[in-house]
Amino acid sequence: MGNSLGKLFTMTSFGESHGRCVGVVIDGCPAGLKVTEADIQAELDKRKPVAGTMATSRVEADKAEILSGIFEGYTTGAPICLLVWNKDTDSGVYEAMRFLPRPGHADYTAFMKYGGFNDYRGGGRFSGRITAGFVMAGAIAKKLLATINIQVLAHTVEIGGIKAIPISMAQIKKNISQNSLRCADVKAAAKMLQKIKEAGAVGDSVGGIVEGIALNVPVGLGEPVFDTLEGDLAKALLAIPAVKGVEFGAGFTAAAKMGSENNDAFTVKAGTVNTLTNNAGGMLGGISNGMPVVVRVAVKPTPSIAIEQQTIDLEKNCAAKLEIKGRHDTCIVPRVVPVVEAMMAVTLCDFVVRAGQIPGVIK
Amino acid sequence: MGNSLGKLFTMTSFGESHGRCVGVVIDGCPAGLKVTEADIQAELDKRKPVAGTMATSRVEADKAEILSGIFEGYTTGAPICLLVWNKDTDSGVYEAMRFLPRPGHADYTAFMKYGGFNDYRGGGRFSGRITAGFVMAGAIAKKLLATINIQVLAHTVEIGGIKAIPISMAQIKKNISQNSLRCADVKAAAKMLQKIKEAGAVGDSVGGIVEGIALNVPVGLGEPVFDTLEGDLAKALLAIPAVKGVEFGAGFTAAAKMGSENNDAFTVKAGTVNTLTNNAGGMLGGISNGMPVVVRVAVKPTPSIAIEQQTIDLEKNCAAKLEIKGRHDTCIVPRVVPVVEAMMAVTLCDFVVRAGQIPGVIK
Amino acid sequence: MGNSLGKLFTMTSFGESHGRCVGVVIDGCPAGLKVTEADIQAELDKRKPVAGTMATSRVEADKAEILSGIFEGYTTGAPICLLVWNKDTDSGVYEAMRFLPRPGHADYTAFMKYGGFNDYRGGGRFSGRITAGFVMAGAIAKKLLATINIQVLAHTVEIGGIKAIPISMAQIKKNISQNSLRCADVKAAAKMLQKIKEAGAVGDSVGGIVEGIALNVPVGLGEPVFDTLEGDLAKALLAIPAVKGVEFGAGFTAAAKMGSENNDAFTVKAGTVNTLTNNAGGMLGGISNGMPVVVRVAVKPTPSIAIEQQTIDLEKNCAAKLEIKGRHDTCIVPRVVPVVEAMMAVTLCDFVVRAGQIPGVIK
Amino acid sequence: MGNSLGKLFTMTSFGESHGRCVGVVIDGCPAGLKVTEADIQAELDKRKPVAGTMATSRVEADKAEILSGIFEGYTTGAPICLLVWNKDTDSGVYEAMRFLPRPGHADYTAFMKYGGFNDYRGGGRFSGRITAGFVMAGAIAKKLLATINIQVLAHTVEIGGIKAIPISMAQIKKNISQNSLRCADVKAAAKMLQKIKEAGAVGDSVGGIVEGIALNVPVGLGEPVFDTLEGDLAKALLAIPAVKGVEFGAGFTAAAKMGSENNDAFTVKAGTVNTLTNNAGGMLGGISNGMPVVVRVAVKPTPSIAIEQQTIDLEKNCAAKLEIKGRHDTCIVPRVVPVVEAMMAVTLCDFVVRAGQIPGVIK
Repeated sequence: MGNSLGKLFTMTSFGESHGRCVGVVIDGCPAGLKVTEADIQAELDKRKPVAGTMATSRVEADKAEILSGIFEGYTTGAPICLLVWNKDTDSGVYEAMRFLPRPGHADYTAFMKYGGFNDYRGGGRFSGRITAGFVMAGAIAKKLLATINIQVLAHTVEIGGIKAIPISMAQIKKNISQNSLRCADVKAAAKMLQKIKEAGAVGDSVGGIVEGIALNVPVGLGEPVFDTLEGDLAKALLAIPAVKGVEFGAGFTAAAKMGSENNDAFTVKAGTVNTLTNNAGGMLGGISNGMPVVVRVAVKPTPSIAIEQQTIDLEKNCAAKLEIKGRHDTCIVPRVVPVVEAMMAVTLCDFVVRAGQIPGVIK
Repeated sequence: MGNSLGKLFTMTSFGESHGRCVGVVIDGCPAGLKVTEADIQAELDKRKPVAGTMATSRVEADKAEILSGIFEGYTTGAPICLLVWNKDTDSGVYEAMRFLPRPGHADYTAFMKYGGFNDYRGGGRFSGRITAGFVMAGAIAKKLLATINIQVLAHTVEIGGIKAIPISMAQIKKNISQNSLRCADVKAAAKMLQKIKEAGAVGDSVGGIVEGIALNVPVGLGEPVFDTLEGDLAKALLAIPAVKGVEFGAGFTAAAKMGSENNDAFTVKAGTVNTLTNNAGGMLGGISNGMPVVVRVAVKPTPSIAIEQQTIDLEKNCAAKLEIKGRHDTCIVPRVVPVVEAMMAVTLCDFVVRAGQIPGVIK
Repeated sequence: MGNSLGKLFTMTSFGESHGRCVGVVIDGCPAGLKVTEADIQAELDKRKPVAGTMATSRVEADKAEILSGIFEGYTTGAPICLLVWNKDTDSGVYEAMRFLPRPGHADYTAFMKYGGFNDYRGGGRFSGRITAGFVMAGAIAKKLLATINIQVLAHTVEIGGIKAIPISMAQIKKNISQNSLRCADVKAAAKMLQKIKEAGAVGDSVGGIVEGIALNVPVGLGEPVFDTLEGDLAKALLAIPAVKGVEFGAGFTAAAKMGSENNDAFTVKAGTVNTLTNNAGGMLGGISNGMPVVVRVAVKPTPSIAIEQQTIDLEKNCAAKLEIKGRHDTCIVPRVVPVVEAMMAVTLCDFVVRAGQIPGVIK
Repeated sequence: MGNSLGKLFTMTSFGESHGRCVGVVIDGCPAGLKVTEADIQAELDKRKPVAGTMATSRVEADKAEILSGIFEGYTTGAPICLLVWNKDTDSGVYEAMRFLPRPGHADYTAFMKYGGFNDYRGGGRFSGRITAGFVMAGAIAKKLLATINIQVLAHTVEIGGIKAIPISMAQIKKNISQNSLRCADVKAAAKMLQKIKEAGAVGDSVGGIVEGIALNVPVGLGEPVFDTLEGDLAKALLAIPAVKGVEFGAGFTAAAKMGSENNDAFTVKAGTVNTLTNNAGGMLGGISNGMPVVVRVAVKPTPSIAIEQQTIDLEKNCAAKLEIKGRHDTCIVPRVVPVVEAMMAVTLCDFVVRAGQIPGVIK
């Protein structure tokens, strides 16, 4: 259980890293939205491995296929099933680790929860690979949001302890496709890549922080007191493997500010209400206030490292040493960027549909 | 909509700051749990205003009443309705601010979302006062968790930029009732109180960080990939007014660590599996791993400050100045502590019930 | 669990027959709907005991109280808590029957499910009295539906085997308030009342059939394939104690018809599409087609009868005889009528809100 | 939206009659359940067209494929995606009817709801073909129920007005595979087949009634007051195209009975409680009482008939005549039988999982 997200615009995820496929069923998408496989493919391509960030490479063509819900190029109102077939699955390396849970991975908890019946190959259901489904759902969600002018984007703001400097929205939009790390601070990006390479060279890994931004979000999205926009964004973003923290606007730094400093003063200009600052990250009382929705997620360093680690043998119930072979990213942060966009887009879609802001049929 | 939380063990919140009452309906609590009004009152008393942290005081007796679901001292399996009547509601001061949204508050978003029909008095539905209902639900949840030995506690780790030093669990348990700020670092607590007083003296406010801990959580709670323990905890905690960030274990600091540093090595001793460190905060792949579940929430400084602020007049659609009169806390962090416990307890209950770890009837 | 209904417009029921109160929390009602306690009271009064249908009478004033969600006469968008306090609760008679489950009642299943912790007095949570909450929720729902011209009404079509003749909608509207049984066929109503009196005289009881009708339902309500309008109406109506069957349009009689006879031919007149007949009961593929939505529910005879019955002693685990004392209706069918209206109204509200057919703020 | 069913054990349906495939994702199935494609195929084969009941035949191999969630022959706890590819899809015949909604079909409501973007071919999303997904989910559900000895079966009790005589459970089990109509009354079955042939000869169709029975259901399943076993069974069964009514136990006949006649007297024998009769259909207060759960559904005559019908032209907005060509069943009742079993099984699984009656891992 737990593989569905959303209330009216929902996504149901299925598939495993080394099974037949990874897929998603999107339900609640209004009819009449123009969607092609190319639209989905374009998003999917964003989560391809980044040059220089991987020890060894799993090369998946990852071709998006539409199984249902789209007819003559438009959504029909019926559930949309999308999937990618798994092809380049070399599971041999995982056989040796079947009973040796990798520290920092879900191997141990999955084994315990499912009594050892879980598909352990490549992390199985807990692999980052399942985010291919998230991204495909996000592709649909982004197209739907675009009909009411909402735009979602994400960028890397920290890797391996190297922070990007604050940059204007215009610069962010311009710069994030300038480098493979999707970092708008081009100088920092170069240092980050260097850091990743150094870590990779010694068989270690690094983490980072991704910032997601939604623009043109209308005032009033979010349902108090539990189904807040913040709460549902956080829940969606924490479904991304390796994310261990979520903050909005000033986030944790707000804790050290004075109220007079943290409060965003209201202004009005030509009938439009804005705030002078955006420490609230675009949400007050869990409801969007018309300012950009800003969220940051903490991505832990990839747990799969080549360095020998201390673990246990689940069969023999004793201490063991583990050396992870096979393919793994030294840094997944840039690959998390499109997934953050996807999860934000999917969550926002659910709220705009709930709020009746999108008609049942797109014209 | 959005006022219910949980899947099997659910809470539905109702009531407003200056309406007749604040209440909660808990559904899905197994029958046979011994619960008295005193049990609920004890938790409720924890969120009373703290001496030295309030400008002026709203003094509510806040007596918990059981309206349904408990018979002859035991839960019956039927929904449990709990409420406190509002008494000390001086709404006059809010009349003047009806169309002047307080920066940092939900006044503006509520006005816009509900077309001005929202009960604006004291923040209405968005008041911190609704957490009285959360805490009452938490009281039931804690009692239920206690039947399987799970313990939930929270403590203040930062106020106004002053950080508590890391302290052992034994010390935390011992110290958190030693001061009104619920801070286990007694020295830091003294400085924090001083900081609060200074802020209050100039009509300003401060925020902070609360850490919640759940002990003896069995391995295997949490449902991948969306209904993770992390995701649902975050969503529940973000329902607490003023919380702007949530992190687990090492959280945002994990982003700057190396994988070899952040991974928690497994050990086994007398058949019990543990990890040497707990950077994962007790959860791997969104599933509990048997270590303490550790979460931290960022609490922004109270937005109600006495200092004059820049806002807008929603009636006249023009700029305006705002001076907030009336009662407000200089620092709500210590009052958030029991609410963090409550939201953690309620969320954990939902998971243990889903996991079939608690029988339908408590014996 | 299981005490909430609906997806966006939801109701959460609480309370017991002999506890402190019976209530309901309605969530998802748009702001700006004018609602008074008198509106709610008017619906509540419809489910008062009917003269001539009760053995002995429980006389409850049943005064509706609004606890939250309505401010200055209008809904605020916040959850609406409504309740009636229990007053005339003579529980003594139930003490003797505590371990003697009444045949046809939920006494046995409740005892088993809740390990004897259930509030057994007057059926506790399983009493027909909880429908007072349903009807209060229905009062709100009806007012909301009225804003888009949807009207819901129900009437008695059979009692004790006596069937009302088919009657035109105009006559139904005119006649249903003509007699206490809410039967539009006035002649049949007289025979039904006679039948009820005869049954009551010998300590027995009778059941019947209630038909619910929703007019002016727009085309397109209902979500395939599971959240159909039919499916959700059936689920809601089966929450009414004593209902054991639900059918739509021609219902069970459709099973014996030919396709050519059962299909409703389409016609178009001045741009408006209708069907010549309404065997589909206003729904095709689970979606409303613009014709009146017609549903019938089978109400079993009241299980509480004065005649001695064979049961078991749950304490001694042996056979026992049971003579039910106390108050009970000989026929609850007319009292089910307003409850059918309420459940239909609540369900339709959920669908119109989901479909975005009602704005977030009523103007 | 609306394509998912269940709370913990859920199914999400996707696919269309003439699209690429029809499928289902099952979530919440415990790990460790032995499942093969052959198990699923066996159920799927039950809904093949029945000889003598179809005008012209669509011949689909309908081979079940497992896409996810099963590893080394056992469920893993991950979502199980099952599908059948559509092959024999001759859509040409539907082109001519694109704007001519078939009376009794969802063509009109689908067109209106989805603004003409719905896949109209063969009824698209509203085709009976989507029940292939239901039946595959039911195959898993039945295997899961078997681990706690619950058995679900269904049989035809009426076709074209011809009723089967009441038959003992032993005879039902023995006889239902004796004839293609799945009718335990072998004599009635012969007459039913004759009736179907007569209807088919004149281009007409017939409906009927299917009875579903669940044996060995433990006492206590079902959640008052809304998530009753009756309510959720009804909702699930009404998702089957053509079902227009649902009744439990005595159902609509209970309406005409006296209470003394309808109440099921309790008996106890060797510690086991039973009722002498089963007018309640195994449920009291919406909760199972340990007796067989008995439900009957009314299946309307197939709306696709060869006889010319009166309809409208949705493009030209005028009256039109319709002659349906292509393949269609004269009677779908026997094909509904396995679908009733499937929907009952899926619903019961959800309740047994919720009730914690099945462990998270099957051993």
